[in-house]
Amino acid sequence: MTMMIELIEETWFLARELVSDEYDQALARLAREVPMTIHEYPSGTPVWTWTVPEKWTCHEAYLETLDGRRIIDRADHPLHVVSYSLPFEGVVGRDELLRHLHTHPEDPSLIPFVFKYYQRDWGLCLPQNVLDLLDEEEYRVVIRTTFEPGTLKVGEVVVPGELEESFMLAAHLCHPAMVNDDLTGVVVGLDVMRALLAGPKPRYTYRFLILPETIGSVSYLSHHENLIPSMVGGLFLEMLGNDSGLALQQSFMPGSQTDKILVAALSGAAPDAFVGPYRTIINNDERQFNAPGVRVPMLSLSRVERPETLESMYRPYPEYHSSADTPAIVTSERLEAARDAVLEMLAAFDRNSYVVNHFKGEVFASGHGIWIDYRTNPEGHRNLFQIMERCDGSRTVADIALELGISFQAVWEIVTRFAEKNLVSFSPRPQPTDPDRPQAL
Amino acid sequence: MTMMIELIEETWFLARELVSDEYDQALARLAREVPMTIHEYPSGTPVWTWTVPEKWTCHEAYLETLDGRRIIDRADHPLHVVSYSLPFEGVVGRDELLRHLHTHPEDPSLIPFVFKYYQRDWGLCLPQNVLDLLDEEEYRVVIRTTFEPGTLKVGEVVVPGELEESFMLAAHLCHPAMVNDDLTGVVVGLDVMRALLAGPKPRYTYRFLILPETIGSVSYLSHHENLIPSMVGGLFLEMLGNDSGLALQQSFMPGSQTDKILVAALSGAAPDAFVGPYRTIINNDERQFNAPGVRVPMLSLSRVERPETLESMYRPYPEYHSSADTPAIVTSERLEAARDAVLEMLAAFDRNSYVVNHFKGEVFASGHGIWIDYRTNPEGHRNLFQIMERCDGSRTVADIALELGISFQAVWEIVTRFAEKNLVSFSPRPQPTDPDRPQAL
Amino acid sequence: MTMMIELIEETWFLARELVSDEYDQALARLAREVPMTIHEYPSGTPVWTWTVPEKWTCHEAYLETLDGRRIIDRADHPLHVVSYSLPFEGVVGRDELLRHLHTHPEDPSLIPFVFKYYQRDWGLCLPQNVLDLLDEEEYRVVIRTTFEPGTLKVGEVVVPGELEESFMLAAHLCHPAMVNDDLTGVVVGLDVMRALLAGPKPRYTYRFLILPETIGSVSYLSHHENLIPSMVGGLFLEMLGNDSGLALQQSFMPGSQTDKILVAALSGAAPDAFVGPYRTIINNDERQFNAPGVRVPMLSLSRVERPETLESMYRPYPEYHSSADTPAIVTSERLEAARDAVLEMLAAFDRNSYVVNHFKGEVFASGHGIWIDYRTNPEGHRNLFQIMERCDGSRTVADIALELGISFQAVWEIVTRFAEKNLVSFSPRPQPTDPDRPQAL
Repeated sequence: MTMMIELIEETWFLARELVSDEYDQALARLAREVPMTIHEYPSGTPVWTWTVPEKWTCHEAYLETLDGRRIIDRADHPLHVVSYSLPFEGVVGRDELLRHLHTHPEDPSLIPFVFKYYQRDWGLCLPQNVLDLLDEEEYRVVIRTTFEPGTLKVGEVVVPGELEESFMLAAHLCHPAMVNDDLTGVVVGLDVMRALLAGPKPRYTYRFLILPETIGSVSYLSHHENLIPSMVGGLFLEMLGNDSGLALQQSFMPGSQTDKILVAALSGAAPDAFVGPYRTIINNDERQFNAPGVRVPMLSLSRVERPETLESMYRPYPEYHSSADTPAIVTSERLEAARDAVLEMLAAFDRNSYVVNHFKGEVFASGHGIWIDYRTNPEGHRNLFQIMERCDGSRTVADIALELGISFQAVWEIVTRFAEKNLVSFSPRPQPTDPDRPQAL
Repeated sequence: MTMMIELIEETWFLARELVSDEYDQALARLAREVPMTIHEYPSGTPVWTWTVPEKWTCHEAYLETLDGRRIIDRADHPLHVVSYSLPFEGVVGRDELLRHLHTHPEDPSLIPFVFKYYQRDWGLCLPQNVLDLLDEEEYRVVIRTTFEPGTLKVGEVVVPGELEESFMLAAHLCHPAMVNDDLTGVVVGLDVMRALLAGPKPRYTYRFLILPETIGSVSYLSHHENLIPSMVGGLFLEMLGNDSGLALQQSFMPGSQTDKILVAALSGAAPDAFVGPYRTIINNDERQFNAPGVRVPMLSLSRVERPETLESMYRPYPEYHSSADTPAIVTSERLEAARDAVLEMLAAFDRNSYVVNHFKGEVFASGHGIWIDYRTNPEGHRNLFQIMERCDGSRTVADIALELGISFQAVWEIVTRFAEKNLVSFSPRPQPTDPDRPQAL
Repeated sequence: MTMMIELIEETWFLARELVSDEYDQALARLAREVPMTIHEYPSGTPVWTWTVPEKWTCHEAYLETLDGRRIIDRADHPLHVVSYSLPFEGVVGRDELLRHLHTHPEDPSLIPFVFKYYQRDWGLCLPQNVLDLLDEEEYRVVIRTTFEPGTLKVGEVVVPGELEESFMLAAHLCHPAMVNDDLTGVVVGLDVMRALLAGPKPRYTYRFLILPETIGSVSYLSHHENLIPSMVGGLFLEMLGNDSGLALQQSFMPGSQTDKILVAALSGAAPDAFVGPYRTIINNDERQFNAPGVRVPMLSLSRVERPETLESMYRPYPEYHSSADTPAIVTSERLEAARDAVLEMLAAFDRNSYVVNHFKGEVFASGHGIWIDYRTNPEGHRNLFQIMERCDGSRTVADIALELGISFQAVWEIVTRFAEKNLVSFSPRPQPTDPDRPQAL
């Protein structure tokens, strides 16, 4: 079993474009780690309001002076060419050239990541420092790219559960020669699936999708419309290796059980994690899952520098969308911590149930060996009774956790003690036990 | 077609009492501008818990010294006599006289507007400055008023729509010899109706009522109980020409679609307008429409000096309820701005619909020519996607506008672009398109 | 009829232990004041998850020096022995002795109240000042207690109403030789029942339970499961004679009609009273009534020194759970004020109804003699109209009071004036009078 960081090292520098040989090569490498189904959608296939794009290949690209001095060469770094750039060959004047050159808006030493999937244009990317040296009148540009029919590929790893209802994990793989965004989400998701596959059969079915951003989700969903009604929740993964705290972005339906469970479980797994509303931390494939006609409550987990600011959406970490997004900025420890947090959230998801009381009144706690002394553990004592009084067949573990502002795990620990004493049982459906009574009026 | 300001000039100085010849004269003048039905309710008719009052006429009234020097004469200004004053003729001592004289509480140069519709008393009104000069022992009072059977008149202008469901506009006409309160509401309503009559047939039916305050609304409603269930919303108009910003008072049911539409549309038409809860800006006939057993969500539009203070209810503008409320304090521009704001609110009311998506997932925006570039228009880009994800057959245009805190017009502009591309259609009924799915638990 | 303060003087110094002769003696004394049913539950009876404890008797107990000098003697004060202490006789070293001695955590002059109902241990209580003098190596301990079968007793006073639905009052009697906690709640409840019995037959049935804390409630409820669905509300009484303001703790279901009524009525009866959420002021038998499977909305009334702090739960007044809790700290005036507040709350509970309008529109107030002049009483005028517009058959008196933030009594005064004029009637069920109308959209 290859470690996450090793998988990153093996595949990061590939030019993993939306539909491309190097994307396929990376996906094939990952498919050696877990059983994976690879769905293929041919170029030109209509997928809802979209169309699967052509395969794009860059055979060669460089910028040179008329006397043959190379300024930049795509052989050095895939980011030197705008993704899905048109081919172009010729001598251009300096002014025209500048209209086709792209630099990083903040750091003059970095090559930016620029893509023009749907604008027909050619372009090159380079550090501002290099651009500043361009003082000749004319330059030669060579961009030899081809557009041709191919197949967009979505890798799917499935852990079958007792139920057909599925939890959807997703990560995109289409960011060429970068690591934190997006390879880290992919390898964390993969490691999560390896752990689930090694464990006992879960209640829910878990599906992990590796795909090109947006168009991959649309392609998969539009070809699996029959599955959509059984997708009961989801989590998108991205940017999980950099030096920032974990940030959980809620779904479009923040009152969903999925939202409640993941929020309450993360507060137990990573108490310092930030939780923010939909579309306030980062935008990714969860948009397709939350969209009209799909409406899967998919949250998103990432590491973001200042998640509380909307500005951070455009620069979630300093190396974002640039040639500085390399293995040097991620660590195994942070990847593993993210993986463990995801596993705790999924464990909670799999466990969450209605808690049905077999008791009436307050339980004789000391008689049942579940007493917590308020003198030595006042918070535990308080939680014990506040959880007990919410075990009524109409609240789930996540409901109780959110009502009390404590973690899913803390509630779980108490209710399993109750269950051991046969004071409660768990049910997938509400079973209210409160007496049916007319309201006083 | 007579301009609003001209109608004001022609009719303002009439003594438009609740039931009176000069009220009828004013209403008849207005009926020359638009097709109008005049409903008549004879004095003594029971109307719900009220009774239609008698016609009141003041033939002559003055206060003079015993040697015949006139202090005040009703021939100079209708406000010199308390509305619905009992007749009185005789010589009275100074002390008794003072108990029947009324002055303005703030400005010693103004005649106040005082009415005693249901208290049987006689009285005269005059500037404090004049009262201060009364130093004789006795004065002669002549108030020659008559009470006799008449008919209370309500003018109704109707713009028939495709639906029987009606939007109710209302304004009162019963404030003698004053302009901002209440003639401005009447002429703005009239101009709104002229515009609607000149346009294409609307979806809803629009009805504009011109009436004496309170008793007029009660008379009309109690005689049109069959129409009440089809009155789906309303707007009361008053004080629309003075030098203050527009203030919209919500209905008793602030969550109604009518409230949502009018609030969201006014924020597009007049972004600086003030919006406040029911009974906090000004009290008028909307009270009868919002009352139990009627419950039409009727809002109220006016120009109020400090609408955020409850004190302003008693003095919404400096000239309120006094002889200073003349044509000099209103301008055509302000009347036209108010009319245009009303027309925008009604246009929104007529358009508001559920937005039913024909798409799933996010729309391929650039492919459908609806892309808004986030680099040049970040707010527009954000709105585009946030509106798109709320087009789900369960939200109206007004719902979406309120959820996002943007104007009705801004949402309308986007959804009509979607509709042109056949991405959405409009429906008068909810048509939810989201998959029916078990909640995760 | 014995006054509350006299009943306290007669019974306070009894060692009213959970199951004990002196508890029975106190209950028998109270039963001479009102018709009372005494329910008996034999020791060992399973009551839900609990078991009725044995009867406990302390025949004699003292601590003395080996030369026979008595340090403390239970004959002086029942609190000198831990409630439900095991028997013990022997000479013990000073260190071991200290492990069985209990003092007050704050005040060195007081004997604390310590109970070990379910921990099998022996123990004595004494002032810290006395303990500090213990400098000998060994002492003689004599605790002659016996555990034997007995019956736990619950006194029940019933005022039958027109309806079987019951309002539950409760107070505990099991705190030995103390007054404010808990005898004051008992005598206030008793006086409330005497007043109800002397009055006309109420609508609801009222039941007052006098019981040992927690186990008494569990015993009664588990033996009256058939009654639980008809218990429509409740109020626990305790600590009502000390020198603090009244504090009302809401039930677990703060949106219940019972909560609304009691909160709105207390705001009329005692405008300065504090109102706080469930489990934030004091914990008592209301926990058993609010618990899962029972869910009676039972509030709790007490006098608490700083009810807004959670710390006050552990020391609601300075003499709490100590030998200083004597008749000296309670007054008749405070007991009577508490009783009157309870009676006002129960009067409101009995009266609360839906208010059904017989009018439409606003009522012609002056014509019906219900006008309130806004110039002399602006708040009354405002209340009149704001109450009127909420009389629509879908709101109770308590709903209206809570919506407007005014007292139950203030609303009641207005709606009874309406009822006298036949403008409204009262109904135990909603009877909405508003027209059924399509929403505008």
